[in-house]
Amino acid sequence: MSDAIEFWFDFSSPYGYLAAQRIDEIGAKHGRAVDWRPFLLGIVFKTTGMGPLPHIPLKGDYTRHDLPRAARRLGVPLKVPSPFPFLSVNASRAVYWLADQDKAKANALAKALFDAAWGEGRDISGASAVADIAAAQGLDRDAVIAAVKDPAVKDRLRKEVDHALAAGVFGSPFMRVDGEPFWGHDRLDEIDQWLASGGW
Amino acid sequence: MSDAIEFWFDFSSPYGYLAAQRIDEIGAKHGRAVDWRPFLLGIVFKTTGMGPLPHIPLKGDYTRHDLPRAARRLGVPLKVPSPFPFLSVNASRAVYWLADQDKAKANALAKALFDAAWGEGRDISGASAVADIAAAQGLDRDAVIAAVKDPAVKDRLRKEVDHALAAGVFGSPFMRVDGEPFWGHDRLDEIDQWLASGGW
Repeated sequence: MSDAIEFWFDFSSPYGYLAAQRIDEIGAKHGRAVDWRPFLLGIVFKTTGMGPLPHIPLKGDYTRHDLPRAARRLGVPLKVPSPFPFLSVNASRAVYWLADQDKAKANALAKALFDAAWGEGRDISGASAVADIAAAQGLDRDAVIAAVKDPAVKDRLRKEVDHALAAGVFGSPFMRVDGEPFWGHDRLDEIDQWLASGGW
Repeated sequence: MSDAIEFWFDFSSPYGYLAAQRIDEIGAKHGRAVDWRPFLLGIVFKTTGMGPLPHIPLKGDYTRHDLPRAARRLGVPLKVPSPFPFLSVNASRAVYWLADQDKAKANALAKALFDAAWGEGRDISGASAVADIAAAQGLDRDAVIAAVKDPAVKDRLRKEVDHALAAGVFGSPFMRVDGEPFWGHDRLDEIDQWLASGGW
């Protein structure tokens, strides 16, 4: 199997949620695994000087119109959680902690966290909420609570955010295919075509 | 014929140039005219607090990679003009001046201006350069020079920029289909599907 598609996202990103609904299917179509990699957009914004979509005049209004439209197009639920933007640090730590034990389970947990936040509008910012969702995936609740407070896991996430910055990841979702960067959920069809054709 | 597709762009926008290569074809496919409407992104940036793509860390690097890739995908030439970003006020005034006389000719002039700037990498910021391109379209060179200095034409462009802001246009290209907003050249396929299906 060829290299995995790197799928970078912040759980607080609704467009990341939309991409999460399709990315595994696109990977499977082309014999590619998908490497789900949460990062913290807030840290990246400090480098780029950009800010959360809903806070940008005009662009925020567009996003509030475009998001439900994009969800309708995909036929997936969309419920904006409150607060939004929310802290995704606990959710992200849990995913990397689990990835070191079982990558497939970590991907499934990431998908479940996204669906809880954006499909159901749940607040997934706290350790307890993350642990509840993990427990529903068959994971040990207390182990998750401990993991998100573990200095080694915290450090792991910090390194992944540095990795994202070094890889040029400035938004969510951001995909890398054999090092080729694609920004935005609206580029998934392009990735599909890129993989089918070998690029251009 | 149904209402025209509003096609908002700044001549200094390379993604606007890419959209300009396809928009008329998409309109024609669905029996829609295309209303080419230049505006000044710099004025809009004062409202949104955003800035030119090449100046944004990481995002600028991505754009420098993505643009030639997107041009290869469409099979169109791309040559970044110098300076970039450039002042598009004269080019924009010429288009609105001509639109009041002959809309089809104004659309053709806009396309020619885009192709000169981004297909050939020419500096189209000055009145003289705009007049040269207009003359190649069969227009009177001196009339174009006079038009871009005409207070009434200047005022017309100011009103169009206000119109863009009022319509929620925050980037280039930006399309509106029956009032439905779409931002980005990578949404043209979505517009095509929207027009084919009647929306979702």
